[in-house]
Amino acid sequence: MKNYSIEQAAQCLKQAKDVVILCHQSPDGDTMGSACAIYHALKSIGLRARVECADSFPEKFGFLFEEVQKEEFSPRFVLAVDVADEKLLGAKIREKYPRIDLCIDHHPSNTGYAEHLLLEADSAAAAEILFLVISSMGMEITPQIAAGIYTGIATDTGCFKFSNTTPRSHQIAAQMMEYGAPVARINELVFDTKTKNKLAFETCALESLEYYFENRCALIPVTMAMMERCGVTYEEIDDIAALPRQIEGVEVGLTLKQRDEHGFKISVRTKASCDASAICRKLGGGGHARAAGCAVEGTLEEAKEKILNVVQEFLEETR
Amino acid sequence: MKNYSIEQAAQCLKQAKDVVILCHQSPDGDTMGSACAIYHALKSIGLRARVECADSFPEKFGFLFEEVQKEEFSPRFVLAVDVADEKLLGAKIREKYPRIDLCIDHHPSNTGYAEHLLLEADSAAAAEILFLVISSMGMEITPQIAAGIYTGIATDTGCFKFSNTTPRSHQIAAQMMEYGAPVARINELVFDTKTKNKLAFETCALESLEYYFENRCALIPVTMAMMERCGVTYEEIDDIAALPRQIEGVEVGLTLKQRDEHGFKISVRTKASCDASAICRKLGGGGHARAAGCAVEGTLEEAKEKILNVVQEFLEETR
Repeated sequence: MKNYSIEQAAQCLKQAKDVVILCHQSPDGDTMGSACAIYHALKSIGLRARVECADSFPEKFGFLFEEVQKEEFSPRFVLAVDVADEKLLGAKIREKYPRIDLCIDHHPSNTGYAEHLLLEADSAAAAEILFLVISSMGMEITPQIAAGIYTGIATDTGCFKFSNTTPRSHQIAAQMMEYGAPVARINELVFDTKTKNKLAFETCALESLEYYFENRCALIPVTMAMMERCGVTYEEIDDIAALPRQIEGVEVGLTLKQRDEHGFKISVRTKASCDASAICRKLGGGGHARAAGCAVEGTLEEAKEKILNVVQEFLEETR
Repeated sequence: MKNYSIEQAAQCLKQAKDVVILCHQSPDGDTMGSACAIYHALKSIGLRARVECADSFPEKFGFLFEEVQKEEFSPRFVLAVDVADEKLLGAKIREKYPRIDLCIDHHPSNTGYAEHLLLEADSAAAAEILFLVISSMGMEITPQIAAGIYTGIATDTGCFKFSNTTPRSHQIAAQMMEYGAPVARINELVFDTKTKNKLAFETCALESLEYYFENRCALIPVTMAMMERCGVTYEEIDDIAALPRQIEGVEVGLTLKQRDEHGFKISVRTKASCDASAICRKLGGGGHARAAGCAVEGTLEEAKEKILNVVQEFLEETR
């Protein structure tokens, strides 16, 4: 693995041919927005490109892919965006593309699986780095590119609310608006639209909230039965993870979502006193200091016990 | 009433003596943030100043007033910030200060009650205009000033989510971060902290949501009994107003909050198809195109009937 600068990545992408752009599984706004931005940048200089992901793209992000075509070709360059670990590509994609030529990422936990890595760990979103790369390629920022960049930044910063937001995040957002990103529409679709089913689910989630460790930890358990009862999909409810941490006095917010009969995906959100990434590493996961995740096998009770044991350890340390 | 430019307002404030800064009643982040910013600007050039408001400031905005002193003096200059109508000052303040020397505002509905008016109706927040005025005064932006400006912009744009957000909103936010506004702390306090009681209230509110007009309108009724049962105050729950409009397909979101035995305050939030300000004007209220309010007398059933009749009229027009 060799580290690349913005300029080296830009140079390398300008010379690339037949590019496949890979998103991480359970795709979020940053991996999709970044992919959309670089796709349109590459297409605008006449390169062949396509975007691939192990999972289908959530409907509410459909606007990003309105003008993205599914082109068939044998790739000669494989780019991964916002993918911290090759495992996050999903087994099928890993098998299909064993060699990743370049990874552009902002996760400090990036495993260095790609041939070349452009990593800016203090960037709020991979999309910010993509903007710098596309600018360095000397390209005009079209409204589609701007929409991708804006979406990546807005989603990874919780619409400029999370502590990872920097002045640069706002500066780039201002520029993307000026380049024609339809931010009012994007914000409405991404942050401000709930289905009736989603609302029903949120009511359930609020009702099932549990407190631990003198209310320093709050937990929402989400079973498949609960999702089914409310008529929501796994992807639709990913923002529920932000809720438990919002409660006054709560230092660690946990959401346990049942993936299948075998286990749970756990989202960990922390306030400044605890490192979410460190908590998740104890259970084989990873992520950022305030937002991280891991997967745990077993029943709901078993999953709770595993994560609560780790959380307790961390809370005792910071008491 | 005479209109003032940014420069004229700046000039006039630099020469002002013994300034009282007035916020509107039921103070929000913009009126308080604006007041806090200009207070610190005036203090830093050695002027006497104080901030007054008909209602007490909500606890979560306490950080704005940590270094604001309550100084006694006979004012020689009265400034109103973010106050669209003198009625919004509250009866006592109006009586105490019958003459308003300058009003700095962004509401298109401003009634022109002040001797001089600096109005920028396309500004997302009054705080943006305050920033331009303070800059034009040639002042250094201190962290306190920056915190006030950032708070005003962030709250009036729903943390950069609402359609009133402009590139300038983001640019100024970036600058405020660089001038030392503690935005992570502000965002956490203002947008990301809920008491357990607040969560209980939200659960109640979700459970009592009603749909009208083929789900084009959603309504949350909030009675004093409900607030009492959950242990929340009137001020704590003002953001509930954003909820009904978020539902897919809902064009008009209504929140009816019981003020006292005599009536309700109604918050109207609309999507692009309907003018919230026009709806509220029919009932003696006003505001912005997507967010407005009015007060209605009567029982819950009577208040519902009054507002739903008006909403029905508007929805029929846009069908």
